[in-house]
Amino acid sequence: MSKGLPKRSEDYSAWYNELVKRAELAENSDVRGCMVIKPYGYTIWEKMQAELDRMFKATGHVNAYFPLFIPKSYLSREADHVEGFAKECAVVTHHRLKISEDGKGLVVDPEAKLEEELIVRPTSETVIWSSYRNWIQSYRDLPLLINQWANVVRWEMRTRLFLRTSEFLWQEGHTAHATQPEAVAEAKQMMEVYATFAEEQMALPVVRGIKTASERFAGAVETYCIEALMQDGKALQAGTSHFLGQNFAKAFDVKFASKTGELDYVWGTSWGVSTRLMGALIMAHSDDSGLVLPPKLAPYQVVIIPIFRSEEELETISEKVLQIKTQLESLGISVKYDNRDTQKPGWKFAEYELKGVPVRMAIGTRDLQNNTIEVARRDTKEKEMYTLDSDLCERIKVLLNDIQDHIYQKALAFRKENTTRVDTYEEFKEVLDTKGGFILAHWDGTAETEAKIKEETKATIRCIPINNQQEEGKCIYSGNPSTQRVVFAIAY
Amino acid sequence: MSKGLPKRSEDYSAWYNELVKRAELAENSDVRGCMVIKPYGYTIWEKMQAELDRMFKATGHVNAYFPLFIPKSYLSREADHVEGFAKECAVVTHHRLKISEDGKGLVVDPEAKLEEELIVRPTSETVIWSSYRNWIQSYRDLPLLINQWANVVRWEMRTRLFLRTSEFLWQEGHTAHATQPEAVAEAKQMMEVYATFAEEQMALPVVRGIKTASERFAGAVETYCIEALMQDGKALQAGTSHFLGQNFAKAFDVKFASKTGELDYVWGTSWGVSTRLMGALIMAHSDDSGLVLPPKLAPYQVVIIPIFRSEEELETISEKVLQIKTQLESLGISVKYDNRDTQKPGWKFAEYELKGVPVRMAIGTRDLQNNTIEVARRDTKEKEMYTLDSDLCERIKVLLNDIQDHIYQKALAFRKENTTRVDTYEEFKEVLDTKGGFILAHWDGTAETEAKIKEETKATIRCIPINNQQEEGKCIYSGNPSTQRVVFAIAY
Repeated sequence: MSKGLPKRSEDYSAWYNELVKRAELAENSDVRGCMVIKPYGYTIWEKMQAELDRMFKATGHVNAYFPLFIPKSYLSREADHVEGFAKECAVVTHHRLKISEDGKGLVVDPEAKLEEELIVRPTSETVIWSSYRNWIQSYRDLPLLINQWANVVRWEMRTRLFLRTSEFLWQEGHTAHATQPEAVAEAKQMMEVYATFAEEQMALPVVRGIKTASERFAGAVETYCIEALMQDGKALQAGTSHFLGQNFAKAFDVKFASKTGELDYVWGTSWGVSTRLMGALIMAHSDDSGLVLPPKLAPYQVVIIPIFRSEEELETISEKVLQIKTQLESLGISVKYDNRDTQKPGWKFAEYELKGVPVRMAIGTRDLQNNTIEVARRDTKEKEMYTLDSDLCERIKVLLNDIQDHIYQKALAFRKENTTRVDTYEEFKEVLDTKGGFILAHWDGTAETEAKIKEETKATIRCIPINNQQEEGKCIYSGNPSTQRVVFAIAY
Repeated sequence: MSKGLPKRSEDYSAWYNELVKRAELAENSDVRGCMVIKPYGYTIWEKMQAELDRMFKATGHVNAYFPLFIPKSYLSREADHVEGFAKECAVVTHHRLKISEDGKGLVVDPEAKLEEELIVRPTSETVIWSSYRNWIQSYRDLPLLINQWANVVRWEMRTRLFLRTSEFLWQEGHTAHATQPEAVAEAKQMMEVYATFAEEQMALPVVRGIKTASERFAGAVETYCIEALMQDGKALQAGTSHFLGQNFAKAFDVKFASKTGELDYVWGTSWGVSTRLMGALIMAHSDDSGLVLPPKLAPYQVVIIPIFRSEEELETISEKVLQIKTQLESLGISVKYDNRDTQKPGWKFAEYELKGVPVRMAIGTRDLQNNTIEVARRDTKEKEMYTLDSDLCERIKVLLNDIQDHIYQKALAFRKENTTRVDTYEEFKEVLDTKGGFILAHWDGTAETEAKIKEETKATIRCIPINNQQEEGKCIYSGNPSTQRVVFAIAY
């Protein structure tokens, strides 16, 4: 199955595209820029959703649902916001089709033109703050802590499965607060929720940081983010959390009466992660044989493959396997038993390797006689014979935890190796050309320097890390004084 | 809070609209025909989703995600299908906005016109069968059992919250099978899943049946449905499951090779329920004081209200309440403790009555002394003093089961009372005018008669019940012979 998967070292981009397709995660649809998320990929997304949703609710948020469509005029209300999104909008102009005059096809019915065009939401700040105006009157209505799971559309010319698609799935939190410190604390909290999720569930180490003004969300006062490093040395922004100040409250006239009766605009945040996380998960851990999935997000954590030559053999093996399966499941481990006789064991081994199943167990007649079972872990490809005793399932549970941890440690070590401190622009460009990765360098804090560096090298400032070490230095580009290093990288 | 809620007997429609708003289930957005589902309403929908999703997976289905947009030409492929949906489509024609020439607003950029218009999916058969063409080659790829949770858009001129909105949330199952009997069995199975869900979770008795040709889904060979009766005597279609024959397989050229190597078109089904179920839930059970929610779908099943005059009293009461809450939660019961001092107990009683919380418990200092707690059930409004003993929480659990069952029995009794057998057209019209409800009458089986009756009375054939009793009779309209009674009603 993995035959012919391109090697990462030769063509990382082709490797990624092929892997996404062959592992049946997603594919391009006939609709430009829109993907189909296939069942195996969607199951991983469902697991991400379930854990994120649990974390959001544990921090006091509730879910709601707001309209897909946004009146065109709403988009204009917040100046930066419209600037950021107007150029990539799917615009609904009509509400009816009719049979064409030659009777052969469908045409847009010119009589069904909308009075005001509708935009398919690229993000929902405008439509949500327009509702909040009616929901918020007094301090008693605050904080308002709402999340939405939804699809959004940002028209993209160059798309890549999961990483950049015209339609994608995401969650967007939108909160309203009585005070600035509360809203800032919320935005930071959600960055921390995302970081914890990435590290503990996705086994993906991330840098927590703040975006520079030019990389900020359109309409935000401050954008907090988590940044991850992929195996090709490129950075991937994995989640953002925005402190919106009073920008949207002012644009949509959302005021509240304080305890003392004074009227003031409320303070807002918004935060989101998307199916882009699927791209991060795939690119961070997988290898030339296929996916490597952290056990916590794997559709099934263990696959058991029987080795048999006859139906009788299969029957005897199955009896034992079903016992093991039940025991594993009682420990909360998800198990697939692939007893198909239409495919050979070797084919199945390759298939589940490609699909990244964390643990593969194989058992044949000889094993039964020896009271053993072969256990292979996907991450290191190590194989070991386990005894079929009462400890077996507990040992598998420990192994799964080991794998989860090992995948994280490996990614962390990779990031360490690929994070470089440079002090001159020459060094900077050389590291970019040869090694890539995160580059820690001094920057003078100006948008001009940032733009020049981007123009000349394509590298952007991924973030200014939270609790960043302060040190005297000189900007690698302008030579002007700087008080801290920021994280540069070529980014997805 | 419930002050001023219109009475069902006086204006059922106004009662419904007001209830949906005041109970904070949903509201109209500024976008024509699109609703905002508020957190309290969305929590009910999440509970519905969770149980339906569990039932779909238990019957072998997996989730996936297909594009929001459908190329216009796809819609034309299946003749009946296009007929059914072309007139209510949101059409995307452009992919960019630009600043208007006067610099004051946004206009559609004429240079960003799409080559082919995109339709926001009204349902996904076309885009999904277009994928299935690539996914299905041989009998080994079948059955393909896929479900999608999504938003869809059908442009509506007259909308009502939950019941008929331009955008709504739903799930749509799309399956492909090697044989006709398998596909028919799947369509019937999913009707049965819906019926079980309605009856066991929503406490809503339903008639399982088959639609007449004129009420069939656009593109289906047979439509199975569940039909429920609302308190105003109108019917509501609560879910449909379609046997599609080979219609979409032919339209999208989806063939498979059988075991013997022969090529044939695959057989399809599709099935869906939507946020319309929220409307059914509200209208079937609620009363003039507000919502009545079956415990299995209530956002919280128990609310506890402390009666106190001082902070000290509240503290003593809270100590006891938190014990009870913990115990209830350990039995899997969801509990809200409303200890706010900003609202009086009477206000809270009315509030939770309006919101349909199944069980309300109230406890004050006197109760603590007497070792009692007041327990009120929402459905019958009966109150009883319970002893604060070790059995308390188990009794609440039993009470919640009683309430679930009682709500169902009440709705079932209502349906029985409001199901009438008639043998003449005069009787038919009189029952429609005076009582409404389900009317069981003989029909000659022709679309002409069905259309005439609809034209003259607005009543439609809701369904031909599954396993319908066969009996000789004469059509109430034409007098022609008939072998069975069908279910007529005025429908939502």
